[in-house]
Amino acid sequence: MDKHAKISGQIKPYEHHRARMLISCPDGPGIVATVSRFLYEHGANIVQSDQYTMDPEGGMFFMRIEFDLDQLEDRIDSLKRDFAEIADKFQMEWNIFQLSHKKKLAIFVSKEDHCLVELLWQWQAGDLDADISMVVSNHPDMKEYVESFGIPYYHIPVTPDTKREAEQKQLEIVNGKVDLIVLARYMQIVSPALIQPYRNRIINIHHSFLPAFVGGKPYAQAYDRGVKIIGATAHYVTEELDGGPIIEQDVQRVSHRDDVAELKRIGRTIERVVLARAVKWHIEDRILVHQNKTVVFN
Amino acid sequence: MDKHAKISGQIKPYEHHRARMLISCPDGPGIVATVSRFLYEHGANIVQSDQYTMDPEGGMFFMRIEFDLDQLEDRIDSLKRDFAEIADKFQMEWNIFQLSHKKKLAIFVSKEDHCLVELLWQWQAGDLDADISMVVSNHPDMKEYVESFGIPYYHIPVTPDTKREAEQKQLEIVNGKVDLIVLARYMQIVSPALIQPYRNRIINIHHSFLPAFVGGKPYAQAYDRGVKIIGATAHYVTEELDGGPIIEQDVQRVSHRDDVAELKRIGRTIERVVLARAVKWHIEDRILVHQNKTVVFN
Amino acid sequence: MDKHAKISGQIKPYEHHRARMLISCPDGPGIVATVSRFLYEHGANIVQSDQYTMDPEGGMFFMRIEFDLDQLEDRIDSLKRDFAEIADKFQMEWNIFQLSHKKKLAIFVSKEDHCLVELLWQWQAGDLDADISMVVSNHPDMKEYVESFGIPYYHIPVTPDTKREAEQKQLEIVNGKVDLIVLARYMQIVSPALIQPYRNRIINIHHSFLPAFVGGKPYAQAYDRGVKIIGATAHYVTEELDGGPIIEQDVQRVSHRDDVAELKRIGRTIERVVLARAVKWHIEDRILVHQNKTVVFN
Amino acid sequence: MDKHAKISGQIKPYEHHRARMLISCPDGPGIVATVSRFLYEHGANIVQSDQYTMDPEGGMFFMRIEFDLDQLEDRIDSLKRDFAEIADKFQMEWNIFQLSHKKKLAIFVSKEDHCLVELLWQWQAGDLDADISMVVSNHPDMKEYVESFGIPYYHIPVTPDTKREAEQKQLEIVNGKVDLIVLARYMQIVSPALIQPYRNRIINIHHSFLPAFVGGKPYAQAYDRGVKIIGATAHYVTEELDGGPIIEQDVQRVSHRDDVAELKRIGRTIERVVLARAVKWHIEDRILVHQNKTVVFN
Repeated sequence: MDKHAKISGQIKPYEHHRARMLISCPDGPGIVATVSRFLYEHGANIVQSDQYTMDPEGGMFFMRIEFDLDQLEDRIDSLKRDFAEIADKFQMEWNIFQLSHKKKLAIFVSKEDHCLVELLWQWQAGDLDADISMVVSNHPDMKEYVESFGIPYYHIPVTPDTKREAEQKQLEIVNGKVDLIVLARYMQIVSPALIQPYRNRIINIHHSFLPAFVGGKPYAQAYDRGVKIIGATAHYVTEELDGGPIIEQDVQRVSHRDDVAELKRIGRTIERVVLARAVKWHIEDRILVHQNKTVVFN
Repeated sequence: MDKHAKISGQIKPYEHHRARMLISCPDGPGIVATVSRFLYEHGANIVQSDQYTMDPEGGMFFMRIEFDLDQLEDRIDSLKRDFAEIADKFQMEWNIFQLSHKKKLAIFVSKEDHCLVELLWQWQAGDLDADISMVVSNHPDMKEYVESFGIPYYHIPVTPDTKREAEQKQLEIVNGKVDLIVLARYMQIVSPALIQPYRNRIINIHHSFLPAFVGGKPYAQAYDRGVKIIGATAHYVTEELDGGPIIEQDVQRVSHRDDVAELKRIGRTIERVVLARAVKWHIEDRILVHQNKTVVFN
Repeated sequence: MDKHAKISGQIKPYEHHRARMLISCPDGPGIVATVSRFLYEHGANIVQSDQYTMDPEGGMFFMRIEFDLDQLEDRIDSLKRDFAEIADKFQMEWNIFQLSHKKKLAIFVSKEDHCLVELLWQWQAGDLDADISMVVSNHPDMKEYVESFGIPYYHIPVTPDTKREAEQKQLEIVNGKVDLIVLARYMQIVSPALIQPYRNRIINIHHSFLPAFVGGKPYAQAYDRGVKIIGATAHYVTEELDGGPIIEQDVQRVSHRDDVAELKRIGRTIERVVLARAVKWHIEDRILVHQNKTVVFN
Repeated sequence: MDKHAKISGQIKPYEHHRARMLISCPDGPGIVATVSRFLYEHGANIVQSDQYTMDPEGGMFFMRIEFDLDQLEDRIDSLKRDFAEIADKFQMEWNIFQLSHKKKLAIFVSKEDHCLVELLWQWQAGDLDADISMVVSNHPDMKEYVESFGIPYYHIPVTPDTKREAEQKQLEIVNGKVDLIVLARYMQIVSPALIQPYRNRIINIHHSFLPAFVGGKPYAQAYDRGVKIIGATAHYVTEELDGGPIIEQDVQRVSHRDDVAELKRIGRTIERVVLARAVKWHIEDRILVHQNKTVVFN
């Protein structure tokens, strides 16, 4: 459809010479001075910078720097090589992302389409500045819709018998080809074989309640308890089910007038908004992970 | 202090002839017609009315009516007697509250004073229209402060050895003398002997998280998981710890920059706001309870 | 597209015998008794009821009743005829809406598509239970997209020279054929000739700020003043530009980090959520208007 | 009262060697490198740092750095002297605040006490880490209450005749003795003679509506229009009435059920929360002002 993909994924002129650097390391004197001097001496101009020290005494230091550098494409390799020395000295985990290299996304979806539709809408509206490389699903339902955006759709059925095979197939399709996997209400447990190469690069969304309800039918439980607030949580996927680092959460007020169907409807709206925000922040390199916690510079 | 108690608890002229009726019963045809006809024929004028049917097919019906009736004080007894027949026919649980009879409150508190201070402040500002009859505490700390409002302060220490005795003493002090008990960060488990006569008339406040954290030090756990939202829940106390019907909840956004102390500080502010709202709604007869759930007409 | 329109607009079995009654009249004794007795005697069972009295002394009374009545289709005419007598006596403005008669919507749109896309998405997800009869636009841009849902698209260009003609054409297309007109970022002033027959049946959405900014480029002004909150307002259209009764408002926090483009992006998200809520409430007959104010029973 | 002032204003051990630096200057290459190198070479360790560039091309640069430096008290003067050279080169506006020097506050109040009470409560709870040096009022009402905290209370009546005299008296009392003036519902216009020496150091609070209502009785107007959201704005005071840089805003949902009195009550709660947040951020040196806009590093 001509209409879609009007802006997202297109490189704006200034993006050719802009990059973002993410750094985590044990805190200590001289880090900021060293990094900023390094960039200055390499001709880079810092456009935005965020820092945060977790637990001042012997804690961790986190930094996000957005900078402009002329002829970035030609100089990025030597810049990285030079920086490796500094990184080594301060025991940094670090990364530099060029804005001209749009992140490639795979969206995993099952039957519920609200999160997928929201991501595609924000993407075509220019609000999710990435390439959506593929949609992977264990159901064929959304094929026509997704392909109308010009996006490949891989239907990989998952049954108890074919689960291992299906996971193998998923891995082949995505591995090395995408930078981020978004589980947009994908109702299968993701295999550790996929989690490992995509550590802190798989985002999941699930509903959340105050308080939490253990066991099945959480919306029915929430209704029976008469909760006044329901919410959703976007997090990175770890081997512990729904236990990974939280990226974003939001809630909405409900009342006794909202029946289970209405609670679910409201839940869907929160889920799509929260997931889209988490994906946006990841795409914009705003998230650093330490242990089981995120630092989000937004 | 002259300053305090300037409005709350004073009877405004219109309140002498105003009352509120709360009704719960199995749904069925003719309830509203019968109740409104009854009031009309007794000369009452309905000022406000809320109804709600939970689960239309074979569900429960809830109603709150605020009405004016001349010479209410003289006619309330016969009104109640007459209504009992209707109530019987429809298997109603019901109650009529006169606005000139201000509810009497006991506030239970331990060492943390933020909820107590908020309630006293809203009370003296005229926002909690009730009588605060007493404050009960297992610590002496707030004695001077509470008494400066002209409110009696009962210091009843609780130790493992004296727990039963203390509970007995509490019961003696409050029973029959107050209409509502507010646990304003009272850090002791309330005895079933107190819960029974005060079913749906003891309000507790506690912090809440998305997701919930089991075990001790919830704020530390929330910090370690990097939650983005913390909240508080006000509920009626039942024999199941923190498991009673939820009255009100609210939340606030937090970020990685908020350390455990700051999370606690924010938590305190949410707690006092949420508790005060729940108390206000109870005082205004806005809450009906069915099973483990509230219907709040606000 | 097969995918779309999967639920919205379909009549569920219970809807054949369910209706909603909206009443506004001067307050006085016996209204509720009379109305509920009327329904009871006609065999109707009240499923939900809301009432509100604005200004108890000599004020206005508002009521929304949802009821079930067997063989509604056959009996609705006589029901209305009988009720007219009651209505007359109490000087009521009133209406009865059958749930089996889905409301017909016309959506007006210009170039910005976020509100239109949200409405169509909620509609095809079954969350806006109405018929979308047509989309009217002064631009051809969204034609293909709208028609892919099987919805007729009327492109009526508006220029200073053709304005009157265009308005005449709009009126012909919609008048009598739709129940509600939604201005989904329609950037033309609507003609009084359209407002009159659609009094309280045209919903508009616009951005709102704390404080308001007079003059052009409000987002730029908001940025310059460093506002921390931006919002949107959905209201019924009156002859006074953006001055009609407010239906719904919502806001989102922003910070100095959000530039004008980001403020606009956030504004778009609030607009689509707020507009969709207002449309939903209108479709569900939850809104009564008195003077320049709405009573929303939600 | 023994109870009060238990924590606020007390110097914690780590605060003796901690300071905060605020910098605004035209953006350009090398600023961060130079500042961080400067601190590093002077033996300071950066604990937290925030930067923001407004409008990357030729815009303004803002920085907040919190750092530890041994023997700060002895070295602060030479540190400042050395830094002045750097500041000069980059045309910086800058300031260094030692955490051991608690800010001194004057609170101005009229008859409405909700904001004053909230500030005093947060202060005595240890949440507003400052010295409250005095309360100034054009009414005597709060004298006893304020003095019970051990805080001096200056009653300076203001009448049309004595206005100039009163302003002169205010200036004498506060000038040079306090660092921040908080207008906690002070219902007099502040004299330019006071604004000038306290530029960006006088915080005011006022209610805000969506949309704004011009003229008197804004709550009545908001009620008549049926607004669904009311809010409050805290801002620095400038010569333009209520037109200064916005520090913080917040809102709460209201409905048609809230009459004018209830709207005012809700408004009071928002006002005290928003004002307290703004004061806290100022005390913690989180706010930079550029033109008519704040950058808040929170």
